[in-house]
Amino acid sequence: MLDYKLLEALAAVLHHQGFERAAKALGLTQSAISQRIKLLEARLGQPVLIRTPTPKATDLGRRLLNHVQQVQLLENELATSLPQLAGERQRLRIAINADSLGTWWPQAMGPFVQQHSIELDLVIEDQDVGLERMRQGEVAACLCASDQPVQGARVVSLGVMRYRALATPDFIAKHLPHGPRPEDLKTTPVIVFGPNDQLQHRYLAQLGVESPFPHHLCGSVEGFLLLALAGIGFGLMPEIQAHQELETGRLVDVVPGIHLDVPLYWHYWRHGGDLLSALASHLAKEAQHSLTPL
Amino acid sequence: MLDYKLLEALAAVLHHQGFERAAKALGLTQSAISQRIKLLEARLGQPVLIRTPTPKATDLGRRLLNHVQQVQLLENELATSLPQLAGERQRLRIAINADSLGTWWPQAMGPFVQQHSIELDLVIEDQDVGLERMRQGEVAACLCASDQPVQGARVVSLGVMRYRALATPDFIAKHLPHGPRPEDLKTTPVIVFGPNDQLQHRYLAQLGVESPFPHHLCGSVEGFLLLALAGIGFGLMPEIQAHQELETGRLVDVVPGIHLDVPLYWHYWRHGGDLLSALASHLAKEAQHSLTPL
Repeated sequence: MLDYKLLEALAAVLHHQGFERAAKALGLTQSAISQRIKLLEARLGQPVLIRTPTPKATDLGRRLLNHVQQVQLLENELATSLPQLAGERQRLRIAINADSLGTWWPQAMGPFVQQHSIELDLVIEDQDVGLERMRQGEVAACLCASDQPVQGARVVSLGVMRYRALATPDFIAKHLPHGPRPEDLKTTPVIVFGPNDQLQHRYLAQLGVESPFPHHLCGSVEGFLLLALAGIGFGLMPEIQAHQELETGRLVDVVPGIHLDVPLYWHYWRHGGDLLSALASHLAKEAQHSLTPL
Repeated sequence: MLDYKLLEALAAVLHHQGFERAAKALGLTQSAISQRIKLLEARLGQPVLIRTPTPKATDLGRRLLNHVQQVQLLENELATSLPQLAGERQRLRIAINADSLGTWWPQAMGPFVQQHSIELDLVIEDQDVGLERMRQGEVAACLCASDQPVQGARVVSLGVMRYRALATPDFIAKHLPHGPRPEDLKTTPVIVFGPNDQLQHRYLAQLGVESPFPHHLCGSVEGFLLLALAGIGFGLMPEIQAHQELETGRLVDVVPGIHLDVPLYWHYWRHGGDLLSALASHLAKEAQHSLTPL
């Protein structure tokens, strides 16, 4: 069998992004960690880590990490039937889109995390990058807008997140005094989450406006809403994120009645054990409280 | 003089993270952009871009980007006194810590952005990375916890952000029924923003608890608070972020009376023109409404 002491050291270095922190987490010296990694590489005849500046896995390292994480999930499962093995909490590394993490997802996860003593490693990624991380075995599950399953993984539909283009009433009065005319929208500042965020482009295309248009870039879910509240621009926000601002009228629709619906899917390793299957069922059920059925 | 058509193409490719999007933004064909970059490289005898997968600047490319951004700032200033030159909105690339962007900063920026017709490019970074980006000329300003000025930049103090360790009353009753005893804190799940976030470590060290301790990783300001609200862990949050939850009692202090104060500083290019100086004065004034004086 593989030497899991060595694989555990590899996983710790990658997880904690450093030899010193990995050593601390495992209660070992930094030199012990370093020796384990070297021994692993000597046995395999290939490097598992790229050392500078923050340690990164090589292709081989990633496959080993994927494997050791699956083994840890299975161990955790064993421990539930053999309480004498229990004690270690299970780490679950998940790629998730920023809007879900900033709105409905934590509440939905609460009871599950408490019941199963899980520790979460949340990696915030756009859908393509999230699925790529899944493919490379860096995460055990991924919440994103793509329904294309990754090889070796299952996918379940969670529902639809509704996005509305919102701004302050003052902002709309200033920039669009004659309603949402394309010629005025073309010069109205938009807030965009990042270079890969096409929601605003899709929304404006519906209204006859093509890129380029003036825009701010803000990769923070909360910052996005706060920039809109500060009258700096308008942008597409999850309805459930802005419900308070909509109720109080601090934010209003740029064009009432027009919105975008984004479907959300949960991807998870097929051989990740009962915990991952149970989590998928749990989320599919909980998501119904916050998302619209597909 | 340098050929600014070529530099503009370089800046656009880096800003939009791709040739196609840069072409669209400048109203050119992709092949025209590509030719401009090649011409620039031929004249300089060195590559300015690393092409795959997303274009990245070489050292030379970064210096040119830094330069062209400073020129753009100065152009903008000229345009304020020569209205016939105006029309283009000024892009301002700023590195900022996530907690400021998720709390007080957008509100403070609102009037300034509207008055000066600025477009913001916000890059969310920890302090060290933010300052490194400043050093490399990738951002014109940086909001972070370090008071060490970068060469060629000025730094002003904005005040102090107060962090409190918060959790739900249920969470505290479950994990710390006998008060914050070190032996209980050692097994209480903590929420950490990322591998470089040492706030929780500093807080726990004050209470006699050293790493490792069970922890979740969540690099989202809003997700962080929502995980705490879902009873998944406790963590250090800006007091101004959690004021509603504190008022309603949904979140309470893990140890009443103990908090951490983090000073915040604004760094900006010395030769970035009047706009950057005016922004620094504006922020120093506005920050007083949200931050405690140092």
